[in-house]
Amino acid sequence: MTAPFSTLDDFRATLSQMPAPDTAARDGAAARNAQLTKPPGALGRLEDLAQWYAGWRGDARPALAHPQVIVFAGNHGVVAQGVSAFPAEVTVQMVANFEAGGAAINQLAQAFGATLSVQSLELDRPTADVTRGPAMSEAECVAALARGWEAVDAGADLLVTGEMGIGNTTSAAALALALFGGEAGDWVGRGTGVDDAGLARKRAAVEAGLRANPAAADDPLQALAALGGREIAAMAGAIAGARARLVPVILDGFICTSAAAVLERAQAGALDHAVAGHMSAEAGHGRLLQALGKVPLLSLGMRLGEGTGAALAIGVLKGAVACHSGMATFAEAGVSGG
Amino acid sequence: MTAPFSTLDDFRATLSQMPAPDTAARDGAAARNAQLTKPPGALGRLEDLAQWYAGWRGDARPALAHPQVIVFAGNHGVVAQGVSAFPAEVTVQMVANFEAGGAAINQLAQAFGATLSVQSLELDRPTADVTRGPAMSEAECVAALARGWEAVDAGADLLVTGEMGIGNTTSAAALALALFGGEAGDWVGRGTGVDDAGLARKRAAVEAGLRANPAAADDPLQALAALGGREIAAMAGAIAGARARLVPVILDGFICTSAAAVLERAQAGALDHAVAGHMSAEAGHGRLLQALGKVPLLSLGMRLGEGTGAALAIGVLKGAVACHSGMATFAEAGVSGG
Repeated sequence: MTAPFSTLDDFRATLSQMPAPDTAARDGAAARNAQLTKPPGALGRLEDLAQWYAGWRGDARPALAHPQVIVFAGNHGVVAQGVSAFPAEVTVQMVANFEAGGAAINQLAQAFGATLSVQSLELDRPTADVTRGPAMSEAECVAALARGWEAVDAGADLLVTGEMGIGNTTSAAALALALFGGEAGDWVGRGTGVDDAGLARKRAAVEAGLRANPAAADDPLQALAALGGREIAAMAGAIAGARARLVPVILDGFICTSAAAVLERAQAGALDHAVAGHMSAEAGHGRLLQALGKVPLLSLGMRLGEGTGAALAIGVLKGAVACHSGMATFAEAGVSGG
Repeated sequence: MTAPFSTLDDFRATLSQMPAPDTAARDGAAARNAQLTKPPGALGRLEDLAQWYAGWRGDARPALAHPQVIVFAGNHGVVAQGVSAFPAEVTVQMVANFEAGGAAINQLAQAFGATLSVQSLELDRPTADVTRGPAMSEAECVAALARGWEAVDAGADLLVTGEMGIGNTTSAAALALALFGGEAGDWVGRGTGVDDAGLARKRAAVEAGLRANPAAADDPLQALAALGGREIAAMAGAIAGARARLVPVILDGFICTSAAAVLERAQAGALDHAVAGHMSAEAGHGRLLQALGKVPLLSLGMRLGEGTGAALAIGVLKGAVACHSGMATFAEAGVSGG
């Protein structure tokens, strides 16, 4: 599906015309849930998840059989500021690792029956250093949004977006600061494991990024272009593209959620088709989820990115849908009560 | 494997001779973990889980391919005290539902590739009403322990024990009170959904149960016989039998954890091969997990029993083991750092 936008304003207009869930399917799922052989509410959040999923899939008794994981990779000029524990060449090395099947996300995608595709976004042309001006031009940002939008498989029934990009927790922190305010220290964390000096450099880079890009504070999409990165814009495009195709989304950690937050800030409700897969150990993620009103499904101290936390949460959603669609009703099973 | 005990004292002796994990395998797993293509610690609790699992399986790079779920069902004389929102005949009706594939646990076992077996324990002969004396004789308790012990498949590489038994949150609360003290109100919850009057009846039944069985306070195994139920004793037997076979266990909710707690109180360390699958919404489960020093993997408001919370957590453990055993090392992948 070709992206229906060629400017940021087009994309903004696209976000304002997104489909809503099928309330009849959701109501049908709620009615079915009330008849299943269990005490009311005894499956807890699994019941809410199944009904939410049913609404977005337009089916009161849906299946979840074709999850898609896409990992977007990009490089960041801000690494010149010494913000990462790993050198920039690790981005391309890890892409090779994804392609060879050796990364964590490969194992998790396989474990939960998801397809995995990797999208490299001009790794040999890093974004500009945000401490000196915009990371991307509008055209570069739109191109990355379109890459994401077009990468969503129309046959998928669930999407997880992951990322790889040395330096990108700094970009995500700058983006979160522009979107939600506060101080740089509220959003900056240790990423892949910087020491205290590295953490101070990240904080300084985020502050410099905001100073160098004053227009970012005015508009979420301008903030994405000025402070984000290609893989971050691509995740935003994919999450929006999933909405257009009525494909529910599980959000991953801090970087994925910062990309998603751009959509919600640009258009309230733009993330209604998304749940938070996990609470990352990266400082700032909890704050970001709270700002978005999302309660994570898992909280296991993960902070790897690649989509790994969200991929693990596929299991939870699969379990929820399996119970909802597979269980017998009280009448079918001849069980008293209900 | 025939149970190596025919009295509670035999069982106590058996618990004192349980195998320890393979420290060489665990150390090998830790060494492998340090070389995998991710920042140190970035998979959070998944890393600990994989190393714990490796130790119990005696393999530094283990597989998790044959999880077994066993649901034990029993009936409880204490239902005469009006402690459940459902009538006692639901136990046998739900067993039929398990056998027909219609319950929540059937869907979750299937979703995570687990075998499921159902063990009914004399459903037409409920335990005695604990408010008037011991629920089970020692011989009845030993028979149930043995049923559980013998039900563990020697080819399994993970065990989940679940239960079905109208009235059994009352038995579990009485057992927890005997094992850990406090007040009846600390351990009594709404179970399948009793109202305030039902909750008061449960509290009264638990208090009466402790008064009617004074010996329960002296010894965990006597408490199991006096206050538990056949399915609770069978779960304890299965969890112990899993340890004997070096099969790791994921604990389910309040009732399963009360059964497990008997083992830990009888022999410190008896649950080292077990992790807590989830935090149930049943009041008292959090307190019970805390008393055992177990941090739940999931917290999704589930309170169904049947092994459902633990079965959902199979996905988390599968993901952990898949990452550990499937990922490339830095050297294998040619990635800088580590």
